[in-house]
Amino acid sequence: ETIKSLMLKLQQCDLIIDGGNAHYKDDLIRVKELAQKNIRYMDWGVSGGVWGLKKGYCTMAGGEKEDFEFIEPLLKTLAPPGGYLHCGPVGSGHFVKMIHNGIEYGMMEAYGEGFELLRSSPYKDHFDFNKIAHLWNQGSVVRSWLLELLERAFHEDPDLSKIKGYVEDSGEGKWTVLQAIESNVPATALAHALFKRFQSRQTDGFSDKVLAALRREFGGHAVKNQQP
Amino acid sequence: ETIKSLMLKLQQCDLIIDGGNAHYKDDLIRVKELAQKNIRYMDWGVSGGVWGLKKGYCTMAGGEKEDFEFIEPLLKTLAPPGGYLHCGPVGSGHFVKMIHNGIEYGMMEAYGEGFELLRSSPYKDHFDFNKIAHLWNQGSVVRSWLLELLERAFHEDPDLSKIKGYVEDSGEGKWTVLQAIESNVPATALAHALFKRFQSRQTDGFSDKVLAALRREFGGHAVKNQQP
Amino acid sequence: ETIKSLMLKLQQCDLIIDGGNAHYKDDLIRVKELAQKNIRYMDWGVSGGVWGLKKGYCTMAGGEKEDFEFIEPLLKTLAPPGGYLHCGPVGSGHFVKMIHNGIEYGMMEAYGEGFELLRSSPYKDHFDFNKIAHLWNQGSVVRSWLLELLERAFHEDPDLSKIKGYVEDSGEGKWTVLQAIESNVPATALAHALFKRFQSRQTDGFSDKVLAALRREFGGHAVKNQQP
Amino acid sequence: ETIKSLMLKLQQCDLIIDGGNAHYKDDLIRVKELAQKNIRYMDWGVSGGVWGLKKGYCTMAGGEKEDFEFIEPLLKTLAPPGGYLHCGPVGSGHFVKMIHNGIEYGMMEAYGEGFELLRSSPYKDHFDFNKIAHLWNQGSVVRSWLLELLERAFHEDPDLSKIKGYVEDSGEGKWTVLQAIESNVPATALAHALFKRFQSRQTDGFSDKVLAALRREFGGHAVKNQQP
Repeated sequence: ETIKSLMLKLQQCDLIIDGGNAHYKDDLIRVKELAQKNIRYMDWGVSGGVWGLKKGYCTMAGGEKEDFEFIEPLLKTLAPPGGYLHCGPVGSGHFVKMIHNGIEYGMMEAYGEGFELLRSSPYKDHFDFNKIAHLWNQGSVVRSWLLELLERAFHEDPDLSKIKGYVEDSGEGKWTVLQAIESNVPATALAHALFKRFQSRQTDGFSDKVLAALRREFGGHAVKNQQP
Repeated sequence: ETIKSLMLKLQQCDLIIDGGNAHYKDDLIRVKELAQKNIRYMDWGVSGGVWGLKKGYCTMAGGEKEDFEFIEPLLKTLAPPGGYLHCGPVGSGHFVKMIHNGIEYGMMEAYGEGFELLRSSPYKDHFDFNKIAHLWNQGSVVRSWLLELLERAFHEDPDLSKIKGYVEDSGEGKWTVLQAIESNVPATALAHALFKRFQSRQTDGFSDKVLAALRREFGGHAVKNQQP
Repeated sequence: ETIKSLMLKLQQCDLIIDGGNAHYKDDLIRVKELAQKNIRYMDWGVSGGVWGLKKGYCTMAGGEKEDFEFIEPLLKTLAPPGGYLHCGPVGSGHFVKMIHNGIEYGMMEAYGEGFELLRSSPYKDHFDFNKIAHLWNQGSVVRSWLLELLERAFHEDPDLSKIKGYVEDSGEGKWTVLQAIESNVPATALAHALFKRFQSRQTDGFSDKVLAALRREFGGHAVKNQQP
Repeated sequence: ETIKSLMLKLQQCDLIIDGGNAHYKDDLIRVKELAQKNIRYMDWGVSGGVWGLKKGYCTMAGGEKEDFEFIEPLLKTLAPPGGYLHCGPVGSGHFVKMIHNGIEYGMMEAYGEGFELLRSSPYKDHFDFNKIAHLWNQGSVVRSWLLELLERAFHEDPDLSKIKGYVEDSGEGKWTVLQAIESNVPATALAHALFKRFQSRQTDGFSDKVLAALRREFGGHAVKNQQP
């Protein structure tokens, strides 16, 4: 809808940039429609979160070479040094951003499982998660920006007791798994990272009820009944 | 301990049969100890649940050939026709039973996910899970005894509203995944079926809290706070 | 295209039945188009494989109640006793069949991993997979029609040495995972069963090359180079 | 054995440090044995790969507080600033290192799947993986040291055509999954990252042969036969 309202005000050869999280196939539809009006289109995948305001945005640009060169001065201003790339034709910017987010889901799940293992360990009363995250950020193999953020999160709330384990997803993780299915790429880690988020939003999942019911049927195993 | 107390009463050449769910490596330890006293040992993996009382038990026997032949008349009585097998030397009966249970976990998870998909579908108000389970048992590819049990469970409680999605595990599923790790066999489906049970027993898992905390840090995403 | 060619020959109130493996959303599009010509439409999901010819087909029917009642005599003839069901409105037959196939993928992967564990076990030289499959079909918890087929397969080729571990998929498994993503249902076991098939068709997967390259970079670990 | 040969040369109150990748349970056995001879023991988990030589090693130390304080000057010299931590009592250093490596497996698999998706995309001919890895390291959410190494790997071998997708594992990933099973922590992403490595070392996996055989049995689907 934004594009439609924009089109009323645009002139031939104007350039629309979609810097949000659109699906690359929608870019391909849009660019055709806009081409009929002689309006140019680029897709930018942008990463950096709210931190981008301070540090500059990492930008994955898709579009025509001329359009990229035309707009490059703007990219130079917005991105940190070296922090933008002309990835390929229209759609490729959002494609690269989609995969970026899929990887992000997978990395987050890896850290999540790892810290849950620390917290369930025989040493748990000795562990200071903030200090461990900080330590790992000093030269270890798993150092990363996500781990720096986690260090901050543990600094503010050492056992994360103030936050619920309820995890939303924002679309690109889903699209990444759809892309895996479409392109015959095995992507169990990324798919599980997505499904784990679905799981976190459930209580008393139906599949688990099926399992509990089956165990009762075949084994006479005790089950937990719902409270009345 | 049972074996130790038994040993006081046993004479040379007596035969102990462990028909419970022991780990095959424990069988290997026991058989050595018992051999020193000239006491024979077999391990039987037994499947069939509480239903075995009526229908006979499926028995996977491990041990010496002579011992198997000695005890075969007993097996013939306890098992349904063709329902016992001399799998191999000591430990092999429990090994085959362990894998049997690992497969059982995987099958149960497959049915669980499938029925949750039915229940979350646009047609959910039309679906009668008992009837669908019954239907699938009439000649479909997924027909099985587990599905017959599920048919019964849905007959008694059509939406499983009386049961909690809290799923215990009883050891063999864990041992199966340990075996996969030990023998370098990829077994993600069986491992996930186990981990899903762990998950079903959690509320507010720590790994999910880590994810929620990270999302807040990098994206300014809203999170759910704990109720005070 | 078949439907288009059929429409040329059909009269008002004729009934088209799609008994193939279509996606339920396509049913919803078709039924609208056909309604404009006053042609009725049902979707039948059919399971039973090539064996259905002998044993009758298990049929999951979607469509209007009147259409189902009209066609019921035909279903009675084709299906084994009790082997058909009016699942719900148009699309629901193919929906139920889709999930059926998703479950089938999950069950197959569970058996596959289980038998690979048997084959990689310390007892492997003692195991006769045909006999173990046959045994498990006599009263064990994992007995099923798939396991009966596997018993046959091991009878013909005891170590499956004549067949390649190359596994196709036929669409419904993919659709099941898409449905999981669309309906926010965690379905890691079914997704992995699909991705494992993709994996089986790869040699030298790119993700594995990425891992090998990373290990060389950070650890100086030896890698296998491609043969020239 | 190293410890045994060391003990011959050690005097009371000497301190042994194991800076390799031992299992934390072995530390607990050793420390008891050494205590009988009045010899002190610490476990250090060390990360940083071959790069540690230049940049300093990130060190996770387990042991008594006095021993840690005694040895701290050495840690200050070996580690980068802030790059060491007294994690807790004996075993905790190796425990934290074990989980570190588990997380590393998960992160690597996430990057691997992501880059395979890029490589299988409709834009693949436009993508320069080295440039994309470099870009993502400039302010994106997935920036990390592993991604810097991957940037290097793609610089040397843009399509990784010289390396085989054959991935070893070195123990800690296995131990992490064992720990998950022992402590009832769901860890599907880390387990799959491990199993994917097993898979990478297989050709013609038996579980896949089971699936192909089943498909032939029930559906008359074509299979690939082994070459004679």
